[in-house]
Amino acid sequence: MKPSIPKGTRDFSPIIMKRRNFIFDTIANIYRHFGYLQIETPAMENLHSLEGKYGDEGDKLLFRILNSGPIAEKINQGTEPIKLNQITEKGLRYDLTVPLARYVVMHQNDITFPFKRYQIQPVWRADRPQRGRYREFYQCDADVVGSDSLINEVELLEIIHQVFDKLNIHTSIKLNNRKILAGIAQVIGAEEYMVDITVAIDKLDKIGLDKVNEELETKGIDPRAISKLQPIILLKGTNSEKLNYLKSFLSHSEIGCKGILEIETIFKLLEDDLKLLNNIELDLTLARGLNYYTGAIIEVKVNDDRTDFNSSICGGGRYDDLTSIFGLPNVSGVGISFGVDRIYDVMEQINKFDQLMHSKKQAAVLLVNFGEDSLNYNIKLAKQLRSNGVLTTIYPDAAKMKKQLTFADEYKIPFVILAGDEEQREGKIKVKVMATGEQFLCTLTELITKFTSIK
Amino acid sequence: MKPSIPKGTRDFSPIIMKRRNFIFDTIANIYRHFGYLQIETPAMENLHSLEGKYGDEGDKLLFRILNSGPIAEKINQGTEPIKLNQITEKGLRYDLTVPLARYVVMHQNDITFPFKRYQIQPVWRADRPQRGRYREFYQCDADVVGSDSLINEVELLEIIHQVFDKLNIHTSIKLNNRKILAGIAQVIGAEEYMVDITVAIDKLDKIGLDKVNEELETKGIDPRAISKLQPIILLKGTNSEKLNYLKSFLSHSEIGCKGILEIETIFKLLEDDLKLLNNIELDLTLARGLNYYTGAIIEVKVNDDRTDFNSSICGGGRYDDLTSIFGLPNVSGVGISFGVDRIYDVMEQINKFDQLMHSKKQAAVLLVNFGEDSLNYNIKLAKQLRSNGVLTTIYPDAAKMKKQLTFADEYKIPFVILAGDEEQREGKIKVKVMATGEQFLCTLTELITKFTSIK
Repeated sequence: MKPSIPKGTRDFSPIIMKRRNFIFDTIANIYRHFGYLQIETPAMENLHSLEGKYGDEGDKLLFRILNSGPIAEKINQGTEPIKLNQITEKGLRYDLTVPLARYVVMHQNDITFPFKRYQIQPVWRADRPQRGRYREFYQCDADVVGSDSLINEVELLEIIHQVFDKLNIHTSIKLNNRKILAGIAQVIGAEEYMVDITVAIDKLDKIGLDKVNEELETKGIDPRAISKLQPIILLKGTNSEKLNYLKSFLSHSEIGCKGILEIETIFKLLEDDLKLLNNIELDLTLARGLNYYTGAIIEVKVNDDRTDFNSSICGGGRYDDLTSIFGLPNVSGVGISFGVDRIYDVMEQINKFDQLMHSKKQAAVLLVNFGEDSLNYNIKLAKQLRSNGVLTTIYPDAAKMKKQLTFADEYKIPFVILAGDEEQREGKIKVKVMATGEQFLCTLTELITKFTSIK
Repeated sequence: MKPSIPKGTRDFSPIIMKRRNFIFDTIANIYRHFGYLQIETPAMENLHSLEGKYGDEGDKLLFRILNSGPIAEKINQGTEPIKLNQITEKGLRYDLTVPLARYVVMHQNDITFPFKRYQIQPVWRADRPQRGRYREFYQCDADVVGSDSLINEVELLEIIHQVFDKLNIHTSIKLNNRKILAGIAQVIGAEEYMVDITVAIDKLDKIGLDKVNEELETKGIDPRAISKLQPIILLKGTNSEKLNYLKSFLSHSEIGCKGILEIETIFKLLEDDLKLLNNIELDLTLARGLNYYTGAIIEVKVNDDRTDFNSSICGGGRYDDLTSIFGLPNVSGVGISFGVDRIYDVMEQINKFDQLMHSKKQAAVLLVNFGEDSLNYNIKLAKQLRSNGVLTTIYPDAAKMKKQLTFADEYKIPFVILAGDEEQREGKIKVKVMATGEQFLCTLTELITKFTSIK
């Protein structure tokens, strides 16, 4: 049988791994510099931790794990009806937020709050695979649990800015606040339709104004309310202009005013960072599907003509009641999540990897294998090179020179060392620079000095 | 409901993650210096890639994943017998070797051989959880695919030596060769019982000589063969003494002689590395359960009175026909696997982490939060510190000083910065050294210089 892997999953080759690690390392390093600490949780969670947390749609997309043990035989007998909950009680992690909430509640007595954690692990969703959407993909989350301060939102925005600056991807950061959305629903007299309104206007980009209004009508919202909503949906201008409009629009809504104040506070705390501030757009149509947000809502999109990639590559927000799903009320959480697989796809499309990574010279060599007699010598040589930090491959077989050089070429090993009988006698090493074809003789000490300057 | 995680799985807190990463980084860094390149494969593999690869016992320990989609409803109807293969066609990765074989066959046209790959990913087994045995644990594998050269075995032994040297764990490396075992079976006239013999003598350590002989008898091996086997099972002495004995014992077995030659070649290539060479013990009772080994067999055990940990923490060997299970014959593989979870448990037991990690000073600070008025100043300060490589946490809430200092204490942040109104006016920063309680005033530039010397 021809070997294959499940649809929606991928193998990652060495070259892809290098690039993926470049992205992971960039994000993790910035998280660490902002004081976030890493945790990991199991791939499998109990189904009662997962079910009901992601809506009906999410429940359908959970990968369930068959109980181990005698259940397999029981199924094959097929003599009695078997309920799903008899044969499966574990599922694969669907995101990193629910496991975080579960973790915080389980370990609440060991955690000093505010708890700033980051987590970089794969998640699994039985989604229909398509471009930019996989059944196994990584999330890179940072969250602060147990602090109401807006400094957290500010720092998360700074992190986003720094990450995409380092990855050299032009983005726009969209910011909204769920309290403003609640205020709007209140002011137009459709308070109980807040969720329907946010879900509908979230789609403005994708389906256009007419369809949004249609959807609002279908949900049973009064046409007068819909009409009052129009200036909000269509609101244009700078952030200050939008805030000024909102201030009068929401003046009679307490929650709306609170939302405005939160946005203003964030902007004020960022006033010395104009580069970041100018990259943030107050976007009232931003709602993000998830209904648990209660404050800030953040979303990042690529802003580059060379890609038609339109999905968000980072998102997040604040949820005032993160852990109540596991029985611990009134603990606020705020966080963001980078979609590394999408970021990878974008960077590949706009050719960022070559630019960012290939300029870095690598201290790496291939030792040509001249057969048994020179092996002991080359093993010693390799040991000295490695102990000086040089990545060293001894070609394992005494293959033809051409084959060995092709190997160096294919694996982008920049230097090849030829230490045959003659070189050994003279105490010299012959080095071939693969990029230029240039060859030179030198001592081991000279070579190591050269490599030390490369690193 | 009280939140919980599936048995045999674990959450990893920040302090545990730091220690685990220390082990992972140590191993990965050494792999890289030996020219190994990283790949990753999906957590889920198709069941037809997994089943039948790990013996009957292994098949029972596979975690199977329920097919997504309408299957759930069908099960709940319970009106017709449902076969296991109708409801599950994917399983969780059980080790990293079978996925490697599958990877090599699938991507054979894109790979330049010899292929030196390393892979660090979790695997899942529905084993009964017990001390040192988890249902989710990491493997750290390095393998060379497509090279028959014994230099690979030599380098893998060097890697093992370097890893445990860096982790400061005293170990003994046990080496054997499947060809010698085959030769022994041949010479005692029990060729067809090779597997039974190796399985039985592999247990010598655990069950003792009498039980081993009993097991051999139960398998139907001629008592004369068992009696001829005794000197081999009980063989003592230095590696050279053992090899000398074997040379005469196996002189009439071609495969046995080949095995001896392989061992001798490995020892010869290591003759300049006495420290490693003296740490390798030729152990004829070493067989390792897996029957696919065809050459070298390697196993590493902890050698430290402070732990009663008796399982192997690293193992490996050569299998001449790695990829034939997926239809590509005659491709040889040789590799090792570090059991990071067991290594962690050992290091914790003998208190290695404090010794290895806590001596490293960390450039990390907590900025005390004095309330809204000083926040903009502290945000600017944080930005400058971070851009100079200092891990910087702004305490997000304007909490009491004591609470903020406790936070620094709990998270082992070595320096606390107090930049209130007075300090801001004077352009100075007050620094508190948590370890000593000492406080001093300095400028930002002075502080950064201080940190640069720490890193």
